[in-house]
Amino acid sequence: MASRNFRELLESRWELGNFLCVGLDSELSRIPESARKGTIRETLFNFNRGIIDATHRFVCAFKPNSAFYEAHGEEGLLALSDTVNYIHEVAPNVPFILDAKRADIGNTNNGYVEAIFDRLGVDAVTLHPYLGKEALMPFLKRSEKGIIILCKTSNPGAGEFQDLETGGKPLYLTVAEHVAKEWNANGNCGLVVGATYPEDLKKVRAIAGDMPMLIPGIGEQGGDLEKTVSAGRDSRGRGMIISASRSVIFASSGKDYAEEARKKATELDGVIRSAL
Amino acid sequence: MASRNFRELLESRWELGNFLCVGLDSELSRIPESARKGTIRETLFNFNRGIIDATHRFVCAFKPNSAFYEAHGEEGLLALSDTVNYIHEVAPNVPFILDAKRADIGNTNNGYVEAIFDRLGVDAVTLHPYLGKEALMPFLKRSEKGIIILCKTSNPGAGEFQDLETGGKPLYLTVAEHVAKEWNANGNCGLVVGATYPEDLKKVRAIAGDMPMLIPGIGEQGGDLEKTVSAGRDSRGRGMIISASRSVIFASSGKDYAEEARKKATELDGVIRSAL
Repeated sequence: MASRNFRELLESRWELGNFLCVGLDSELSRIPESARKGTIRETLFNFNRGIIDATHRFVCAFKPNSAFYEAHGEEGLLALSDTVNYIHEVAPNVPFILDAKRADIGNTNNGYVEAIFDRLGVDAVTLHPYLGKEALMPFLKRSEKGIIILCKTSNPGAGEFQDLETGGKPLYLTVAEHVAKEWNANGNCGLVVGATYPEDLKKVRAIAGDMPMLIPGIGEQGGDLEKTVSAGRDSRGRGMIISASRSVIFASSGKDYAEEARKKATELDGVIRSAL
Repeated sequence: MASRNFRELLESRWELGNFLCVGLDSELSRIPESARKGTIRETLFNFNRGIIDATHRFVCAFKPNSAFYEAHGEEGLLALSDTVNYIHEVAPNVPFILDAKRADIGNTNNGYVEAIFDRLGVDAVTLHPYLGKEALMPFLKRSEKGIIILCKTSNPGAGEFQDLETGGKPLYLTVAEHVAKEWNANGNCGLVVGATYPEDLKKVRAIAGDMPMLIPGIGEQGGDLEKTVSAGRDSRGRGMIISASRSVIFASSGKDYAEEARKKATELDGVIRSAL
């Protein structure tokens, strides 16, 4: 594990034509009865194991959102750790992004770096840009990890600040420009751009070169997959981590949840491959 | 505990002339030998207990930064919970802010609301503004809690995005304006403005009316306390949660750490009272 490098792992998945990322947003109340076990830790992990087994062969990454685990305190934290360990075991070539949306000032970030990279052992993390590059240096200097900055988020109200004009361009493009030109000295940065804004995705791609983009918002949020691929691919036809969460992992609430997740993920994968 | 209300607790502390907030940024490696116990959980809690006992009579709030606890996984989480429970026990009138700097999209925030407000039981939380009001509604609708939005942060590089011109004013003032005019329907919002930028603090106060402001950056970060009070007080001479962390809790690395923390906090408290 010492030699894992997020960008290298990602490129090797892209090389295979894999661009789908499965979001392990494992909300306890939506987990099927058939996947439940004695403890919350066991239930969350058991459910995730079913999804991972069913999809790891053709995804480019897994992405749990930390909130769904933190909601359950230490049991949730242990389930997250069990999940990371399981991916390392059965799918050691699949990178693992913790969607944690963190960002504090300078030294305080050391605590998050320790928790997320060194303790949990994930390959990449999502961060808020608001505090600036100087604050995020404890993350940015970890060149082997992926540092994925929120740029244009997928939610309906994303534009409240992100679309404000800043020196002739919207804030989200200024963020993209700073990250591409000033934050990426170690070649480890990426950007989050929602599939719900394909026109904006295209503008970000024009600024960001071949930087990896994490693109949530397909599936339940309604982003159009073909438009996303058309707007999001880089000059090499790569560069995309297209994330689907609830539409895949909760495709069925029955015993067949893993099989239905595989079918839904296969369907999305097919649409992406034919749109490339 | 069902009837706790952040703003009411805070007002009753202000009524007593208490404006100092002690930041429980309990970085494990800096905890004095004399405070150490068998486990990390016990050490973190024992250290915090010493600080709380020494200072709770004259502070307006306590504020642990989540990163220093998350760094230690489930043990850190349990130490944080022990600390919250202890404050409820010995200082039930002192509100408790978790400096977690969270923010995700809509429903996902429910996980953080559950973890922070319902499970841990804190009175207030700090949040990033970047995703907009719509995303933060699960927090904003909790009218009894404090929802404290990052506005102008205390770090040297804060201005990278926060100072960008947006429609004739810097982004941090646009954030302040939105929070004051549009986000605060439940009267539960506050703003974070660093003591390291007293001129900006004054501008934010002019926009924000009597909204509570969490003001970090005095002490080791170098903010000037008299300028801070002059710029930060509201029309009633209140409105400030002036936070000192390392300069208080690590005032001594010896057995006398709690006593020295009390002395340092008393000194800061005295400066604030005479500057009012």
